[in-house]
Amino acid sequence: MGELKLVRRQRERLGDQLYGQILERIIAGELREGDKLPSENQICQAFSVSRPTVREALMRLHADGLVTTRQGSGTFVKKRPSDQLTRLVSVSDIAGMLRCLEVRIGLEGQAASLAAQRRSVPEMERILEALATLRASFTDEAVPALADYAFHRAVAKASGNAFFAELLEMLSGPIQGAMGVALGLTRAGSKERARRVIEEHEAIAEAIEAGDAEAAGLAMRYHLNRSRQRVTDGQRDL
Amino acid sequence: MGELKLVRRQRERLGDQLYGQILERIIAGELREGDKLPSENQICQAFSVSRPTVREALMRLHADGLVTTRQGSGTFVKKRPSDQLTRLVSVSDIAGMLRCLEVRIGLEGQAASLAAQRRSVPEMERILEALATLRASFTDEAVPALADYAFHRAVAKASGNAFFAELLEMLSGPIQGAMGVALGLTRAGSKERARRVIEEHEAIAEAIEAGDAEAAGLAMRYHLNRSRQRVTDGQRDL
Amino acid sequence: MGELKLVRRQRERLGDQLYGQILERIIAGELREGDKLPSENQICQAFSVSRPTVREALMRLHADGLVTTRQGSGTFVKKRPSDQLTRLVSVSDIAGMLRCLEVRIGLEGQAASLAAQRRSVPEMERILEALATLRASFTDEAVPALADYAFHRAVAKASGNAFFAELLEMLSGPIQGAMGVALGLTRAGSKERARRVIEEHEAIAEAIEAGDAEAAGLAMRYHLNRSRQRVTDGQRDL
Amino acid sequence: MGELKLVRRQRERLGDQLYGQILERIIAGELREGDKLPSENQICQAFSVSRPTVREALMRLHADGLVTTRQGSGTFVKKRPSDQLTRLVSVSDIAGMLRCLEVRIGLEGQAASLAAQRRSVPEMERILEALATLRASFTDEAVPALADYAFHRAVAKASGNAFFAELLEMLSGPIQGAMGVALGLTRAGSKERARRVIEEHEAIAEAIEAGDAEAAGLAMRYHLNRSRQRVTDGQRDL
Repeated sequence: MGELKLVRRQRERLGDQLYGQILERIIAGELREGDKLPSENQICQAFSVSRPTVREALMRLHADGLVTTRQGSGTFVKKRPSDQLTRLVSVSDIAGMLRCLEVRIGLEGQAASLAAQRRSVPEMERILEALATLRASFTDEAVPALADYAFHRAVAKASGNAFFAELLEMLSGPIQGAMGVALGLTRAGSKERARRVIEEHEAIAEAIEAGDAEAAGLAMRYHLNRSRQRVTDGQRDL
Repeated sequence: MGELKLVRRQRERLGDQLYGQILERIIAGELREGDKLPSENQICQAFSVSRPTVREALMRLHADGLVTTRQGSGTFVKKRPSDQLTRLVSVSDIAGMLRCLEVRIGLEGQAASLAAQRRSVPEMERILEALATLRASFTDEAVPALADYAFHRAVAKASGNAFFAELLEMLSGPIQGAMGVALGLTRAGSKERARRVIEEHEAIAEAIEAGDAEAAGLAMRYHLNRSRQRVTDGQRDL
Repeated sequence: MGELKLVRRQRERLGDQLYGQILERIIAGELREGDKLPSENQICQAFSVSRPTVREALMRLHADGLVTTRQGSGTFVKKRPSDQLTRLVSVSDIAGMLRCLEVRIGLEGQAASLAAQRRSVPEMERILEALATLRASFTDEAVPALADYAFHRAVAKASGNAFFAELLEMLSGPIQGAMGVALGLTRAGSKERARRVIEEHEAIAEAIEAGDAEAAGLAMRYHLNRSRQRVTDGQRDL
Repeated sequence: MGELKLVRRQRERLGDQLYGQILERIIAGELREGDKLPSENQICQAFSVSRPTVREALMRLHADGLVTTRQGSGTFVKKRPSDQLTRLVSVSDIAGMLRCLEVRIGLEGQAASLAAQRRSVPEMERILEALATLRASFTDEAVPALADYAFHRAVAKASGNAFFAELLEMLSGPIQGAMGVALGLTRAGSKERARRVIEEHEAIAEAIEAGDAEAAGLAMRYHLNRSRQRVTDGQRDL
């Protein structure tokens, strides 16, 4: 990895660029599972970046479950995103998808709690309809990403606060892109994955229907957190 | 239900007693799924208790998913805990089990977040061993409740704060009782339930291993919240 | 209140419209502190709306601390927003301000946690500069709303995820409007209020500087929650 | 610091022992504000402990706000607990106090949320009485620690779940010890500190009275988090 320079792009954080370029090497197979990454010092020098930039990139790789740190011996590649994922999207899209899910955890967690307290009867019906469509779309020829987005929009609307649905709308591009990829992987992947995705949505809908604000917020944040892990993990059923 | 008086017991909250006595009627089949409960006023008079006491009991039944409120038309029985559950434990035990899980959500959620930040290598190994034992105990003749408790104790110990394990120890009686019942139901119930219980523990262990404090706290609280729902819901696979 | 009909507006939730119209009566002094509101049934009939709509409006008035429920005897006006507030903004703006703060709790709470984990040295400096400007603007002739917004934007940027700052930007209209009003009240109000506003920002900055993700998220959500209460409470120092 | 060996004690985590012994050096003035700590490697060798043990001790010092890390240049002493604190308690007591507060954040945060949903009228009165006593005890000759503990016990009881009060009771020794010290510092310290302590309790009581579960949990966790910082920070008004 040492012979490479950071290709600097305008208007993008250095930490993000470095993250993307290490991720590219993992995807390309230049860095394989179990391989040790260069030390922080070596990365600083190889890419001509400061230590905080290196730490930020490593922290993000860590949070995405791509590398692991064994105390006292360094940082190692933990897993490689699936070939399916890397055929479907570019590296910068993967970073964008993960970033988008991070925002949604705060935003939609709050919306789900409020929906449990305020949803009207027709709003609850729309949530359940979207859930039924999502369930069907895994067996049909339908497109799960649309049903998935419809579910999350229905929850946002049921919060009784129009700002939630509006902000979600602004994220709809990256969200639907990410869902398309994640659910594409899920369908290609296995029945196990599809089952888990459906169960997570069911837990959200149940908690909203029961009027349990704490459980609804928890179920939504748990689902988005797991989705984040599913993006980078093609090997296993999450 | 109107002809019954509240049998008052010493040292127990009136709201709890009323909760228990309505739950008994649901379990005994005197109140069936879909039946409408008397109005708040009628319950006040029938049991000679104040309105806040009635509200507390109803709120608890609601939180436990046993009744549902249709706005403008009243409160209805939503489901009956399974016969298996009611054969295994008394009504006051069910209330105790639910109460105990409520405390654990706060306590163990915090412990899991700290464990993600502080667990040593041997502590992580003990968590993974307990997970393996739990997984095996569903197929073997082993006792899942012991393995389950061992898992939660291992997480508490990995928090690096001895108070968490000590408080958990103080709750060990009700916890193991509840686990015995819940896992008994799970084994009797279906493979689906067992799978879900195992998956929830896996998500906790993974987040602790990845050092992700937010995900670990979330996964623990989600698991305990779902366990709470499993206690009162024998019909479905939760 | 009974003689009034709900003036229906397009594209606005009925519950919001009802909320606004009851709030107007409180502000206008038609409903005074301690006055009992009509029953849910009476409101349904007076405004020709369904019971869920009435409940939603009442729940919101409750959450805003404007009414209180005494169990068994009904809903009462708890306090009247200050004259200052009602001179400064229209009722629909007050509702918008509260709604905007509700979204920010989820969004900025998450951003503050991430900022504690990822902020670079220059990002931390910008947070501290904004804090210093905010502190000065209460004594100077400066405009606190600009400094306040600059502080929150600096935290969002330090999250290392550009979506947070972008979404905040989209809310900048209502946010700055609300800050102008709230801080206007604060300056007009008392030194106590100004001190509290500054202290809350200090707690956020300290936690981010210390790298404590949990404390940073907590401090941000606590601050926005208190801000919400300050909007409707002109009498006391919050 | 290099010439010292870790005095190993039975039954106490190595990380805790190391934490305590570095803390002792800070308190004794052997390590002063701004001083650089030895590197992880040097500490490993000086105390004959493993690197994870060193990291755990450093992380705890960091979380307690006693040291700070400047990326790329090492770990530095940030502040020294006040002389008052160190006159009042031994080092192991300080560690115990911090540990106890950490548990209470999870436990009492949950209890406060439930209290907001379930407190009866007499339970709310007891919370407000304890608040009034606490307020008075800062001006009187009374003992704030007793009033403080009474407040927290009243909130736990209002949760409607007896386990919360029982677990709090089990922690009452360390809690009252810690409160005695913290409030002792507060009285000795300044009016500013006393004011803040009272305000934090007021925010908890208000949210419980308003029935706002989210705000109540948030206010309680914020208060305990700030208390944690007050223990080690004698210089400033927190």
